[in-house]
Amino acid sequence: MRVDIVLTAQSVKPESVRGKICVVIDVLRASTTIVTALANGCAAVFPTETPEEAREIARRWGALLGGEREGLRIEGFDLGNSPLEYVPEKVRGRMIAFTTTNGTRAMRACAASDALVIASFLNGREVTRLLQEKQKDTLIVCAGTRGEPSLEDIVCGGMLIDSLGAKGMPETERAVALWNEHRNNLAAMMKTDSLHGRTLVQLGFERDIDFAAGLNEFDMVPVRRGDAIVRREDHG
Amino acid sequence: MRVDIVLTAQSVKPESVRGKICVVIDVLRASTTIVTALANGCAAVFPTETPEEAREIARRWGALLGGEREGLRIEGFDLGNSPLEYVPEKVRGRMIAFTTTNGTRAMRACAASDALVIASFLNGREVTRLLQEKQKDTLIVCAGTRGEPSLEDIVCGGMLIDSLGAKGMPETERAVALWNEHRNNLAAMMKTDSLHGRTLVQLGFERDIDFAAGLNEFDMVPVRRGDAIVRREDHG
Repeated sequence: MRVDIVLTAQSVKPESVRGKICVVIDVLRASTTIVTALANGCAAVFPTETPEEAREIARRWGALLGGEREGLRIEGFDLGNSPLEYVPEKVRGRMIAFTTTNGTRAMRACAASDALVIASFLNGREVTRLLQEKQKDTLIVCAGTRGEPSLEDIVCGGMLIDSLGAKGMPETERAVALWNEHRNNLAAMMKTDSLHGRTLVQLGFERDIDFAAGLNEFDMVPVRRGDAIVRREDHG
Repeated sequence: MRVDIVLTAQSVKPESVRGKICVVIDVLRASTTIVTALANGCAAVFPTETPEEAREIARRWGALLGGEREGLRIEGFDLGNSPLEYVPEKVRGRMIAFTTTNGTRAMRACAASDALVIASFLNGREVTRLLQEKQKDTLIVCAGTRGEPSLEDIVCGGMLIDSLGAKGMPETERAVALWNEHRNNLAAMMKTDSLHGRTLVQLGFERDIDFAAGLNEFDMVPVRRGDAIVRREDHG
């Protein structure tokens, strides 16, 4: 079982994901939000590249509309990209057509992989458990922001690599080092050291960051089935 | 609140469903199966007219394939149209692309209605509760079989009309009379007096009929959202 990490969605090559499990991380905020939605009873997330495609799916299947552009809720959408909006009263039993800039791109980049799982600080322990159970070559895909690496994604990747005991390569060693540097102050790391985190604070989403920093809040792993993202169930 | 009943999907006119709640009944077996699937944790049923359309949805969204032609499971499908196949271990958390001959046609015929709910003997009490709460004009749509009325659908419709105290028209009176005639021996009625029931017995599905005769097993109402059929939740 080999574990690699790439620091932006743009660095994923189709040939590098074949036969592997891809773990997509976009801590601020798509992967945190997807984990929260599914943990709170959302039936399925349908990721789309464009708001138009999301609207078409919402019309056809009665899905809620969720997602962001420039960090903000899209006009006419039911939900933005704040995990705090995805409460059980809104999402339980509902499908959600979901479009974000970086997270959706990272998922699409992994289209040719054998499996895709969504990780965040909220569900790291359960993702580790799944990877240990599968014992397959794994590529950790940090979504990054507009083609640039995001510190919080790398720290989250480092957490998984550390739990798996999968050090050895310079990139994975570096991610584990960053995890060890920031593991005791994840929220502060995101608010201070992360460019994207600072932008979110300016947009008024500081509470999203505190929430995203919650370690192992949910024992649940979102997995890809078709192009949808669903809870991994026992029979998955 | 006015309640009408039509005895086959073919007799539904688009203008007769506008502004109304349509209650689709196909006791043997589509509505019984949809109720069972959703009660057992299925996330959503996507009804389709053709197996090809079902396959496309299954590929795209990772849905299970369910349905029948000539009463039998379609080649390559995960599930047929027997409610007994839709156990929690198979359907929990899964979406199902679902195609049957009469049930799907009945749902499509009600496309222009304000709302659509799925009824069977299994969930009659809860359907009645919903209709009493809504107090809207209602059309009970018996699916029938190949354009002919099916006794069991009319008996089930009569059960709803009786609970609602909505007699008055010749058709509704007749349905209530049939309900009162058969209410204490629903399984026998389906096995003996129903042409479609007798066919199912010949095909080896006698247990499906016993199951379909179970009154008020589930306090759950499948409702249409977009073109999907989902559990009615509190926030629905």
